[in-house]
Amino acid sequence: MNEGKVPGGTAADFVKEALAECRDVTLPALREVVEGLHPQLARIGAYHLGWREHDGTPTDLHAGKMMRGTLALLTARTFGAGTATAVRGAVAVELVHNFSLLHDDLMDADELRRGRPTAWVAFGSGPAVLTGDALLSQAMCVLAAADGGASARRASEALAKAVDAIIHGQAADLSLDHFPVDRVSTEDYLTACAKTTGLFCGCVEVGASLAGAPVAGVRALRAAAWNLGVAWQIADDIESIWGDSADSGKPPYGDLRRHKRTYPVIAALRSGTPAGQRLAARLDTVKEHTEAELPLLADLIDQAGGREEAERAARDHLDRALRELADAGGEESARDGLASLFHHVIDRHHWQRPTAAAGSMTEGTAQ
Amino acid sequence: MNEGKVPGGTAADFVKEALAECRDVTLPALREVVEGLHPQLARIGAYHLGWREHDGTPTDLHAGKMMRGTLALLTARTFGAGTATAVRGAVAVELVHNFSLLHDDLMDADELRRGRPTAWVAFGSGPAVLTGDALLSQAMCVLAAADGGASARRASEALAKAVDAIIHGQAADLSLDHFPVDRVSTEDYLTACAKTTGLFCGCVEVGASLAGAPVAGVRALRAAAWNLGVAWQIADDIESIWGDSADSGKPPYGDLRRHKRTYPVIAALRSGTPAGQRLAARLDTVKEHTEAELPLLADLIDQAGGREEAERAARDHLDRALRELADAGGEESARDGLASLFHHVIDRHHWQRPTAAAGSMTEGTAQ
Repeated sequence: MNEGKVPGGTAADFVKEALAECRDVTLPALREVVEGLHPQLARIGAYHLGWREHDGTPTDLHAGKMMRGTLALLTARTFGAGTATAVRGAVAVELVHNFSLLHDDLMDADELRRGRPTAWVAFGSGPAVLTGDALLSQAMCVLAAADGGASARRASEALAKAVDAIIHGQAADLSLDHFPVDRVSTEDYLTACAKTTGLFCGCVEVGASLAGAPVAGVRALRAAAWNLGVAWQIADDIESIWGDSADSGKPPYGDLRRHKRTYPVIAALRSGTPAGQRLAARLDTVKEHTEAELPLLADLIDQAGGREEAERAARDHLDRALRELADAGGEESARDGLASLFHHVIDRHHWQRPTAAAGSMTEGTAQ
Repeated sequence: MNEGKVPGGTAADFVKEALAECRDVTLPALREVVEGLHPQLARIGAYHLGWREHDGTPTDLHAGKMMRGTLALLTARTFGAGTATAVRGAVAVELVHNFSLLHDDLMDADELRRGRPTAWVAFGSGPAVLTGDALLSQAMCVLAAADGGASARRASEALAKAVDAIIHGQAADLSLDHFPVDRVSTEDYLTACAKTTGLFCGCVEVGASLAGAPVAGVRALRAAAWNLGVAWQIADDIESIWGDSADSGKPPYGDLRRHKRTYPVIAALRSGTPAGQRLAARLDTVKEHTEAELPLLADLIDQAGGREEAERAARDHLDRALRELADAGGEESARDGLASLFHHVIDRHHWQRPTAAAGSMTEGTAQ
């Protein structure tokens, strides 16, 4: 376990500072890209990113956490990249992240993000899709225009592959929800997880490639980021059922309402417990759950051990991510900073029960 | 005029053969990409491309003309690229073209393409958007994975910029339709034309970059392709009003029904003629035209000189395209082949009145 390497307080402070610094250096570049779009798309982009209200007035919302941008930035620095190079990677992955949010919100029929109507609800499907396209295209442009020969070329390739992985994962995820309850497996879940892991891998690969990191290091980073992405997705699944919707800005029980085959649900269905069987019977027969039934389904999942198993799996994937990261090379203290970010990325989810979360090193810094 | 350079029959034969050969060498690579997508997306992609029916059975439809692929392929060859390199460019631009069709059909609420329901009608908005995303991402991957150092890198950059231009043009086009009739200008039209010219420029730039063409040649090619794209768009506008919907596979008067500010409409509105004023009054006051009114609107546009002016502009832009092409350098006979393709691209539209079309060199080869 690398957790001990960095003393709690210091690691939390480091992450807080790293996230704040990434925002400071990345946000102006990101704003420049979004504001340079066609005015209609710039308006939708700024709304989606939380910078502006529907009518264009600036918000007092926090700018996004830029967790993925920070991941790219810290990775690039671990392998010696300067800030200008690292920021290019951060901007590119944040653009791809927001492209995928804009399109996924439409595909998943999500109507709320951060407590506000999603872009397709606020501006219509067509304009929201086109804004997503514009952000993806800008991400390609940011890296394609970068100097740096082979390094920049590898970064462009890593970004293209990341986008491909996200899309494949999203398609798998949409299919998964139509699987009969007795057929859905953890393997299928992990395939669909590419909707998340694809960009986590992209963040470290783009960052490391821009910095000219050696191939073996990039490979270890990929494995680390894949595990981190799985841990993040499982934590997100847990939060979507048992978390506080005031924290997430999303409606409660959203994933249950939409019959999503999330990790806790799959673990419960495969538990062989009476609660798991009752859950299967409910999911199989009921096409649309009543509001009153949703907390009962959540309880069944918990009773079947689905929540506990999901918590275990999330911790396990985080541990694997940290082990892989330790083998990735690069500058050691910067890599320790990355490890702190890994912890933070998972711990900022409100997914651990009060007892499990007690003493969590990032307690109090989650936002 | 370069028209005289290549004798009629020979040029028509050349284009026919070039299009057929491009299909022969590009289609297998394109199929491989589409069939390698997630099965759900592969199915939608094959339907959209006309290869398969909704239920997955192969169609007896013609495969697409691959006009953009052929443009990239012939440009690459004009500057000495081998077939494998040239095909990569052709596949990339065909993927981008189909990405934009999938998304535009949704944005424009088009329900028919080649006489069949569009993908978003047949499979739903979300899956159609995701399939478009997948084709765009694959286009990036095809070029990012290409060997060839600086040439391949310039091709990737050209593709990214082309996608950016298409999206900007599409946003401008969506805005244009909301302009009051007295405010819409030819300049606004040309800005929105980037939805078409963006990829025409992308085709020649990707092809020339992959072949390592000199910068001055690429610049002339860009100017040629931009003019070709404008000519194409105007011809398409004319066909959409006066063409035979059995040929286009689209409903008649589609652009008029949707209040689109196409070139003939703008020319009529700005003609200062009584017919133009009557047209303006109709467009300003009527929110939804009856079926019976659509041919009357078309007649008003014609009486105001909108059709004649559009025909003149299309021919003028084609002439400019051919003049720029003549300055682009590269291998002369291959470039003459490109010039023949330029003629064909415009002449295959059913936009010229019988008298104007008489003696057209590609007569009989349009498909």
